[in-house]
Amino acid sequence: MKNKLLVAGLLLGSSVLAYGQDEKLDMATLDKIRQEGMQRSQVMETAFYLTDVNGPRIQGPGYVKAANWCKDKLTGWGLQNAKLEAWGDWGKGWAVERCYLAMTAPYYKSMIAVPRAWSGSTNKLQAADILFISETDTTALENYRSKLKNKVILLDQSFRISPSFKADADRFTDEELQKMAGEAAGSRGQRMQGDSSMRRLMQAMRSRNVFNQKMRKLAKQEGALGILNTTQTSKDGTLFVSGDYANAALGSTPDDLADLSIAVEDYLMLCRLMKANVPVKLELDVKTKFFADDIKGYNVLADIPGTDPKLKEEVVMLGAHLDSWHAATGATDNAAGSAVMMEAVRILKTLGVKPRRTIRLALWSGEEQGLHGSKNYVANHLVNTATNQLTKEGQNVSAYFNVDNGTGKIRGIYLQGNEAAGPIFSQWLKPVNDLGATTVTIQNTGGTDHLSFDRFGIPGFQFIQDRIEYNTRTHHTNMDTYDHLQPDDLKQAAIIVASFVYNAAMRDQKIPAKQPVTAQQATR
Amino acid sequence: MKNKLLVAGLLLGSSVLAYGQDEKLDMATLDKIRQEGMQRSQVMETAFYLTDVNGPRIQGPGYVKAANWCKDKLTGWGLQNAKLEAWGDWGKGWAVERCYLAMTAPYYKSMIAVPRAWSGSTNKLQAADILFISETDTTALENYRSKLKNKVILLDQSFRISPSFKADADRFTDEELQKMAGEAAGSRGQRMQGDSSMRRLMQAMRSRNVFNQKMRKLAKQEGALGILNTTQTSKDGTLFVSGDYANAALGSTPDDLADLSIAVEDYLMLCRLMKANVPVKLELDVKTKFFADDIKGYNVLADIPGTDPKLKEEVVMLGAHLDSWHAATGATDNAAGSAVMMEAVRILKTLGVKPRRTIRLALWSGEEQGLHGSKNYVANHLVNTATNQLTKEGQNVSAYFNVDNGTGKIRGIYLQGNEAAGPIFSQWLKPVNDLGATTVTIQNTGGTDHLSFDRFGIPGFQFIQDRIEYNTRTHHTNMDTYDHLQPDDLKQAAIIVASFVYNAAMRDQKIPAKQPVTAQQATR
Repeated sequence: MKNKLLVAGLLLGSSVLAYGQDEKLDMATLDKIRQEGMQRSQVMETAFYLTDVNGPRIQGPGYVKAANWCKDKLTGWGLQNAKLEAWGDWGKGWAVERCYLAMTAPYYKSMIAVPRAWSGSTNKLQAADILFISETDTTALENYRSKLKNKVILLDQSFRISPSFKADADRFTDEELQKMAGEAAGSRGQRMQGDSSMRRLMQAMRSRNVFNQKMRKLAKQEGALGILNTTQTSKDGTLFVSGDYANAALGSTPDDLADLSIAVEDYLMLCRLMKANVPVKLELDVKTKFFADDIKGYNVLADIPGTDPKLKEEVVMLGAHLDSWHAATGATDNAAGSAVMMEAVRILKTLGVKPRRTIRLALWSGEEQGLHGSKNYVANHLVNTATNQLTKEGQNVSAYFNVDNGTGKIRGIYLQGNEAAGPIFSQWLKPVNDLGATTVTIQNTGGTDHLSFDRFGIPGFQFIQDRIEYNTRTHHTNMDTYDHLQPDDLKQAAIIVASFVYNAAMRDQKIPAKQPVTAQQATR
Repeated sequence: MKNKLLVAGLLLGSSVLAYGQDEKLDMATLDKIRQEGMQRSQVMETAFYLTDVNGPRIQGPGYVKAANWCKDKLTGWGLQNAKLEAWGDWGKGWAVERCYLAMTAPYYKSMIAVPRAWSGSTNKLQAADILFISETDTTALENYRSKLKNKVILLDQSFRISPSFKADADRFTDEELQKMAGEAAGSRGQRMQGDSSMRRLMQAMRSRNVFNQKMRKLAKQEGALGILNTTQTSKDGTLFVSGDYANAALGSTPDDLADLSIAVEDYLMLCRLMKANVPVKLELDVKTKFFADDIKGYNVLADIPGTDPKLKEEVVMLGAHLDSWHAATGATDNAAGSAVMMEAVRILKTLGVKPRRTIRLALWSGEEQGLHGSKNYVANHLVNTATNQLTKEGQNVSAYFNVDNGTGKIRGIYLQGNEAAGPIFSQWLKPVNDLGATTVTIQNTGGTDHLSFDRFGIPGFQFIQDRIEYNTRTHHTNMDTYDHLQPDDLKQAAIIVASFVYNAAMRDQKIPAKQPVTAQQATR
């Protein structure tokens, strides 16, 4: 998820570079980082294992298999204490074991279908009629009570899809980057919108699902076989698929109702045929599996220990969520970020750098269902949840750097309202300006794991990345596959992350935390 | 298929209007055509029946069902002599009855798959290993003879797909149209490139298929289950699928080998896994059916009889191919053209026009496999195939108008090298200039049924249409569905076709045939 939020306050621009000229950069090491990252990159090999070889990394065996592969790989590279760390109880794991849907009358057409996450099963290949429901009022659902047995439910949708006169892929233009660099800082209230906006979005999603949930409950009670879904964003065989994770909650009994996302073209055709009273028959075979043997959620952690006696208790963190949705192999969301972060520590370890502070890589889980992995890591380690104050360990975190906006190369960094970090990062970007990374913006970006740090005042940042086809083709889709990764972009990103992490680990001071914004600044 | 060909010769531009000012247009009727086409259009309803309700219109029951629906609809609208006319022996019909493919190891992933036309079956749900073949030399195939049993064959492909930085959909710009209008006419030799270029293209396709054909033959002999295919044009869930029609030839024994087009993302992933020696398992269930009870090919024909005793033997023809490939419902290729042509005659019939010449609608079959319907219509009716001279019936055809370039609105007309028709059509376009149709180009366009007329000197034309997403998303794809049709564009096209056909039917003279191009002109 990605929510960019504008905030108001102090202007940041090239002029701010004037008050940060004391950054001492270890240019020799930065050069080596670039050489290693460009000439001996393993980022695509890592991505290949996380996607093609591993498969979807949704909570359950798919995630755990990938997490163990990462742990072993990180250990192999020489990182210390590589481990899976349980962050708490998540609930049941889930995986798809078969998915087939076709129309068999008025003619045969196989359909592009993916079970929504935590969907149930049909138990075998079944023939089925459609029950077409035009109502959107939950009270009207009772009228269908006796009509649901062995039916597949289709809720009326009549929107039209449009051909795209805009390219699926793009990169930030110079103008866009300059505009971002010129944005103003905001009040703390506005700055926290990242979190609250995401909460509102998820609330809206939940409301929209109330009807569907009631529908599903009734459908299960009455012995319906399945329910079909689509989204207006789906097109051309690209499906956007996520899922309801209520079914994964501890103790819940998964219902045997096949909950399928299908191609919008197939969905709208079925609606038109039903409205025209053309008899339609389906056949479907959906088999999913729930895993209750291990209900814990796990993050992957690994360190490059610090070497400065005075600073080695301090930590520079870098992370990305390793979990994914399941319709494809989560290549851009977020094998990309995970592979970039792993490549960054591989580069540093391979070069044998001796960081003053400890460098800690975290690969999170449960991000897609609400940043669970990172939130719980912060709660378990960095914050006293009774007082909301940072623990000693929390105070020792200099900064957290996150990558989770797809395959695009890094164009700069979001300050997340942290004005004091601006001049530092501007200088850190100078050696990689030629790679296209130039922009420091006071802007916030939301929807991913740096928020778990930022909300407690730990400097948490995410990089600005070119969008490529993140919002049009890959983000939460069945097309989020290895082939949609851009090797040159990922190499560049790993080099820049490695540079930032190294700089942060070597700096005399930690990255400054955000200053409280005054009322005067907030209204400027 | 669509091949635009540049030709050299006389310049045509706005100035040519000067020598065609004698066109007498029945503006009252043209206004009525526009009113009927805009306000009471049935073009989308027709398209709905041809696509959603009928399904794929590939040779066989799918095509015949649609053809009969058209015949009945045309009769209902009051056209005369609506009929299916056999044009000769085609071969076996074919239809898909089930298609399912998934990877089951290293993890489960259902795949987007469509049988190539005239594919055989697997007979039931089967589990299978992959036989991965890197060789491209047919002599190397013998080495695999003993290894094929129950395998699914995967031929190595290692191209990369790229994100699209260009929009899927576009319309002709004013500049592009002006350039087309300014193109020069060419020699007869160049002008005929439409045909020969298509032949070359098909020859290239055939050569490329030689390896696959040999592979398939060996595979069948040895009891392989199937073979996988993809194309570099496929992307994002959009598959380009056609097929080999050798299997449809009379007397051929279809082999039970599942010949599947699959999503390029799935195909390349399988290649990568095989190259990395990761054990891969598939399961697939493909059932197709061949129909040998009626091996004839049929066109649909219907008339609005002429009323002028001196001219009613003459005929103005309009047509489009009704057949389609099978991966979707052939909405833009070419339910669009068929619906537009049907709508054009519906408008004329509804208005009760009394055309001087007979207006004849033709909906062709077998276009996708080589313009069979239109070629055979011409051979059966319009040309003495012994002498290649026009029959009396052929001499009586004033013109043939074709639509087969997708859902886009009409922007003008290709003269197909017929210079004398230019000033006539320029004037005919004037009343519809405001609808975006302005351009007369001497250019050729190829790949469809007007060529069957043009090659014998019968004035045959196709309209210039906005491309929308024809080449990127719909042409011969699994996404060529009703939802990719643009209602306003199709309404506009039907109005313009109806106007052209009406003007041609009322004109004192037939549309002039092409003049032989002199050597001097050819080299200008």
